[in-house]
Amino acid sequence: MKIYFTFDPRPDLKEDLLHEFPEQEFIFRNTVDEDLLKTAEILVTYGEDLVEEHIAIANQLQWIMVVSAGLEKMPLNEIAKRGIVVSNVRGIHKVPMAESVLAHILAYKRSLPWIYEKERNAEWNRKSKSKELRDSTALILGPGAIGGEIGRLLQCFGVKTIGCNRSGMNADYMDCMVKFDDLTTVLPDADIVISVLPSTKETHHLLGPEHFKAMKTSAIFMNFGRGDLVATDVLQQALLQNDIAYAICDVFEEEPLPKEHPFWTMDNITVSPHVSSHSSRYLERGFDIFKPNLKKWIAGDKQIENIIDPSKGY
Amino acid sequence: MKIYFTFDPRPDLKEDLLHEFPEQEFIFRNTVDEDLLKTAEILVTYGEDLVEEHIAIANQLQWIMVVSAGLEKMPLNEIAKRGIVVSNVRGIHKVPMAESVLAHILAYKRSLPWIYEKERNAEWNRKSKSKELRDSTALILGPGAIGGEIGRLLQCFGVKTIGCNRSGMNADYMDCMVKFDDLTTVLPDADIVISVLPSTKETHHLLGPEHFKAMKTSAIFMNFGRGDLVATDVLQQALLQNDIAYAICDVFEEEPLPKEHPFWTMDNITVSPHVSSHSSRYLERGFDIFKPNLKKWIAGDKQIENIIDPSKGY
Repeated sequence: MKIYFTFDPRPDLKEDLLHEFPEQEFIFRNTVDEDLLKTAEILVTYGEDLVEEHIAIANQLQWIMVVSAGLEKMPLNEIAKRGIVVSNVRGIHKVPMAESVLAHILAYKRSLPWIYEKERNAEWNRKSKSKELRDSTALILGPGAIGGEIGRLLQCFGVKTIGCNRSGMNADYMDCMVKFDDLTTVLPDADIVISVLPSTKETHHLLGPEHFKAMKTSAIFMNFGRGDLVATDVLQQALLQNDIAYAICDVFEEEPLPKEHPFWTMDNITVSPHVSSHSSRYLERGFDIFKPNLKKWIAGDKQIENIIDPSKGY
Repeated sequence: MKIYFTFDPRPDLKEDLLHEFPEQEFIFRNTVDEDLLKTAEILVTYGEDLVEEHIAIANQLQWIMVVSAGLEKMPLNEIAKRGIVVSNVRGIHKVPMAESVLAHILAYKRSLPWIYEKERNAEWNRKSKSKELRDSTALILGPGAIGGEIGRLLQCFGVKTIGCNRSGMNADYMDCMVKFDDLTTVLPDADIVISVLPSTKETHHLLGPEHFKAMKTSAIFMNFGRGDLVATDVLQQALLQNDIAYAICDVFEEEPLPKEHPFWTMDNITVSPHVSSHSSRYLERGFDIFKPNLKKWIAGDKQIENIIDPSKGY
């Protein structure tokens, strides 16, 4: 079977693959090559390099393995029409992302940016205004694999967790659940509002000015899902009006965030350049999902893990 | 009974005290007043303002309540000779300190100082080199109340915990235990070495150059106990020689750390100005220990919580 990677993994990971699947033909390239596309049966991609025209010429393509979670840049309609199976690496982000979210929350509570600033000035100053995370309440928008891991860790720190999704159905590590429609009723209880929602029709601009007005003025808002959850100017206004105390965003409506955007210099927001899922173990974990799936596929079993519905995008 | 505070607590905490103990005489001053000392029966202090001469004139003094954990600045010999009871607030540091330790570890692993630097430069740069905390091994020197809370949280993050104390006796939230004497045998296993040890004869300069040489070159060393655990120049040499990857210190042999000390500018150490136990809830928690003790004391029961042996200092 011809398996085309549109990126070039670490040597040890490639060797491992060649060793485990000696009868398959692997091609590793850092580009999307049209000739290779025409003959590839399996495509492994980060998901940001494919356009409709690629799908149109990929006549032999049966399965696209996306080594990423967000599929919004994929030509999903074209893929759905052709009946190509799409799977992703749902789940491998949960450890690094949850660690990033906890890192940012704890850094804020325990004055780390302040400590670093004093250090830059060689200033021994003990007047820190640190707060505690314990006994806080967190509202988690999107309590799936990643949101659940964030919830689990927050509960370890003695934080009450409220999960929020479309259905309001129970989710792991959430002390209680609400629906999107009931968001405004629970926002006044939350000390921390964290979104890890994907970008879908239902989550696009889900949060409006009224939601930020409903939050505590001491609340922290964290967007680690997708930038279009809230319009940039809505978030900016909420911060300028001090509707909330602080925002920590790893994602933005426009990425890269433009150089001249006020967020870079405002003192009540941390700008993180969409790096929260990064990990030295990322690809290793992705391959741990890909390899069993490839074994199944070769054996003729198309019921692989993490299949995506292209019509929904998740 | 005459109860003299050598500091002036928050108004709500004072009112609460006066309301709960209407028959006692409370005095709140931000100084150590000799006339007041002569008549006070109970003294409430942060523990850094008392000298031998104070104890000598405090004829009526029976109990010193120290709203702090470290007692090394107290005139303990004089206090022991007089048979004055000393109690502290052991335990109230564990939540804020453990949160600080986790904040610093996660910030290091998840590239927060790097993210903040990019933000200062308005630079959208996604080439972060983040690592994961999960599956690390941590060695905790001093697995008592604070060390145990650090161990509990680390275990939640999937970290293996090795505790180390004088006896090697079992301690909570430690996967295994070693004695001080066996330190060098476990140092090569630890990704993170964290000390929360008090300053005693046995912990003074407990770590020497050989210990840093035994650590992984990728190890993080964290001192959140007392600065004399390691001689300043020993730590400095270990960092200059890259015996370890990084140090995060909240305590130093000389405090304040002198303005001209190289630690301020070295790029493989974070200097935190002894603030890791700070919390907006600190005094509230201290009073939660003091009030039941005061009730007991008034009733004639001298078996109060958290009594210190002045001859040992803990």
